[in-house]
Amino acid sequence: MSRLVVIGGDAAGMSAASQARRLRTPGELEIVAFERGRFTSYSACGIPYWVGGEVPDRDDLVARTPEEHRARGIDLRMRTEVTAVDVAGGRVRARDLGSGAESWTSYDHLVIATGARPVRPELPGIDAPGVHGVQTLGDGQALLDTLAHARGRRAVVIGAGYIGVEMAEALINRGYQVTVVDRGPEPMATLDPDMGRLVRRAMTGLGITMVSDAEVTEVRTGADGRVSAVVTGDAEYPADVVVLGLGVRPETALARDAGLPLGDHGGLLTDRTMRVRGHENIWAGGDCVEVLDLVSGQQRHIALGTHANKHGQIIGTNVGGGHATFPGVVGTAVSKVCDLEIARTGLREKDARRAGLEYVTVTVESTSRAGYYPGASPMTVKMLAERGTGRLLGVQIVGREGAGKRVDIAAVALTAGMTVERMTTLDLGYAPPFSPVWDPVLVAARKAVRAVEQRG
Amino acid sequence: MSRLVVIGGDAAGMSAASQARRLRTPGELEIVAFERGRFTSYSACGIPYWVGGEVPDRDDLVARTPEEHRARGIDLRMRTEVTAVDVAGGRVRARDLGSGAESWTSYDHLVIATGARPVRPELPGIDAPGVHGVQTLGDGQALLDTLAHARGRRAVVIGAGYIGVEMAEALINRGYQVTVVDRGPEPMATLDPDMGRLVRRAMTGLGITMVSDAEVTEVRTGADGRVSAVVTGDAEYPADVVVLGLGVRPETALARDAGLPLGDHGGLLTDRTMRVRGHENIWAGGDCVEVLDLVSGQQRHIALGTHANKHGQIIGTNVGGGHATFPGVVGTAVSKVCDLEIARTGLREKDARRAGLEYVTVTVESTSRAGYYPGASPMTVKMLAERGTGRLLGVQIVGREGAGKRVDIAAVALTAGMTVERMTTLDLGYAPPFSPVWDPVLVAARKAVRAVEQRG
Repeated sequence: MSRLVVIGGDAAGMSAASQARRLRTPGELEIVAFERGRFTSYSACGIPYWVGGEVPDRDDLVARTPEEHRARGIDLRMRTEVTAVDVAGGRVRARDLGSGAESWTSYDHLVIATGARPVRPELPGIDAPGVHGVQTLGDGQALLDTLAHARGRRAVVIGAGYIGVEMAEALINRGYQVTVVDRGPEPMATLDPDMGRLVRRAMTGLGITMVSDAEVTEVRTGADGRVSAVVTGDAEYPADVVVLGLGVRPETALARDAGLPLGDHGGLLTDRTMRVRGHENIWAGGDCVEVLDLVSGQQRHIALGTHANKHGQIIGTNVGGGHATFPGVVGTAVSKVCDLEIARTGLREKDARRAGLEYVTVTVESTSRAGYYPGASPMTVKMLAERGTGRLLGVQIVGREGAGKRVDIAAVALTAGMTVERMTTLDLGYAPPFSPVWDPVLVAARKAVRAVEQRG
Repeated sequence: MSRLVVIGGDAAGMSAASQARRLRTPGELEIVAFERGRFTSYSACGIPYWVGGEVPDRDDLVARTPEEHRARGIDLRMRTEVTAVDVAGGRVRARDLGSGAESWTSYDHLVIATGARPVRPELPGIDAPGVHGVQTLGDGQALLDTLAHARGRRAVVIGAGYIGVEMAEALINRGYQVTVVDRGPEPMATLDPDMGRLVRRAMTGLGITMVSDAEVTEVRTGADGRVSAVVTGDAEYPADVVVLGLGVRPETALARDAGLPLGDHGGLLTDRTMRVRGHENIWAGGDCVEVLDLVSGQQRHIALGTHANKHGQIIGTNVGGGHATFPGVVGTAVSKVCDLEIARTGLREKDARRAGLEYVTVTVESTSRAGYYPGASPMTVKMLAERGTGRLLGVQIVGREGAGKRVDIAAVALTAGMTVERMTTLDLGYAPPFSPVWDPVLVAARKAVRAVEQRG
């Protein structure tokens, strides 16, 4: 009988625990999981839709409750924070956040799934009541509580990445006047600026005020101590509530203190089996690890539930005696603002430059369906290909219904290392209600072939 | 100065002509195209939507008119049928269908793009007025003329493949009582029967009467000589109009008479550059050729506008002095009945058996979006993988909005020869409005991995 200890009760941790449980009986493997919060296995990605009201109930976001995990034979300790990992001793120290009591638990296998924390710049007033991150379900609840008692209806979102943009729309849906303040030239910096411009247009159309190239210098508070405004170099934006959408960093203080290997982005470093490098019986997955970017060959930090679930599944399989590996990512992401769908995979121009790659870019306009079919809507596809080889490097898509998930075509092509020439003859699903006779991704690939040939 | 002669003025032929024109000036290359009908470059795939009324106007289906082609420097001869190809002499004989005059035209390059013709079984009454194929725009017009003057509102569709099912819905949309008579156990024989059953349910829900396992023995006519009923072994279905949805065969009589090589399915055989095998200066593409199935390694005949356009593009590039190839297909197709989306790629069970492959199959139920997100709808994904190797062999998807184009993930994976295990970690677009945290295709891949391991 051996013991698996899991730190963190969300996607990666509980997927690992559940999968190990499937493969090993309680007689073979004891599983203890620590979670410092009040929720397990929830969709953090769903928080904006809960705040915005599309998802009515917090419980809708919870895939599996603590009780359900326990019923499946996982010894789950809620509101219990792991405060130290003793690698040499093979044990962790945990504190019951209710009683304050601490105790050590030994492990044969350890899974670190401590997630990420929202970036919170060191600014005057940043910790004032009314300033919210939206990383955990608890964060979402706190924000909703603020909204329920806000003095007015003015919201400022700091940062125009996925979360910032999704939260801006959520707040619009709740009747707020929303200003998004961002340091970049265009929102959605995960896209190149020429594509981000299309997102800005949709945001503006929704009534969101988009302030670009602006650095926040201070969060101002009112007489009651609560947030009252966000200040940039040259302006001040009144705010009854502030949401931080500045992205996240790996939550790896515990791992660092334990002497475990961290990468340049602050995430844990693992091998393809999700074992922490150099540690046979310590595993890590989800938002606290770095992953290999299969296109650039570099390590990246990408906080995304879909990776966390895969990591957990792979860890659980390996702990349970099977064999599974995570080869890496290609950087696919999809989002929406109102009915605008926004997707990207692979490298942006600046990623390609950073990776030292010579590239060509093309941008095409096409439609989601045959042009004559009702509901055909415009779609912009940008494609990057390596000069010389013609290898696909990245795709960005902005359009309406049917645009976003088309990025999967490019995601699989990137995974396979396809050239844009090979892509031009891909046998994709065609019928007038689904696609023009040349799918927009193929139209881009054809143009990319010409660009590669001309400048190659 | 050399001359390119094109036989057939639709997708493959005119794509070839247009692409060659782009690459070669009229001073370098004369282009003569013969079309026996009255239309060029139209979407045959759009005919059901025109008949059904979603596409209001016939002209909407025409991508480029004869006048537009002529303005681009193509000498287009409409209503002119090529009646012979003299390979040794390098010339074709064409008859002006208006005057009946015949003349020979010599070529340096010949493109055969004669398309396909609907299967028309030799049955009593099959040629009666009121019995319609729907292969050409002319066919569609003839059907609409019949509908405008039909005595009653009873329609029988013979055959429940893509065209049959799409035409059944079109006729329902026009207020007809529709019966579909099919010889198979379930509609949509391009799917396995267990998936076809889901299509039957949608058809029935739409008010279509689906008669399976039925062989049509006769088309009965009334006193006026027009169609009055469709007769099967044991029943008779009254009909004011009959639509043939029995699929198509390559239109290759001309090629056969010229001694050009045909395959087992009756289509022209070409190499990857779309050159007819053994003939340096004769090219063929579109519905009149056979294509290589990259999954089974066998030749197939697939009549689909998306392939025809690619063939034409490749032929035009090669005739114009460039170099392009068509590696083959994986057999992707997508369709819809009402709001049910139906997609397939790769091999069905019977294809796998025919190809001598050992395989496992899995079927999963998932949803188009995160389960908690509004509009999440159920989706059934069936996956075939090769026993032993775990290579993906095929995927079939039936579901609502967002289901159909997911088949592209599998189409690209098949093209790349991926295993189902590799697929489980594909980095696909995830956000609650677009997908569950595990995309339905990945859920199927995970289950397929287990099936391969258990029975492998």
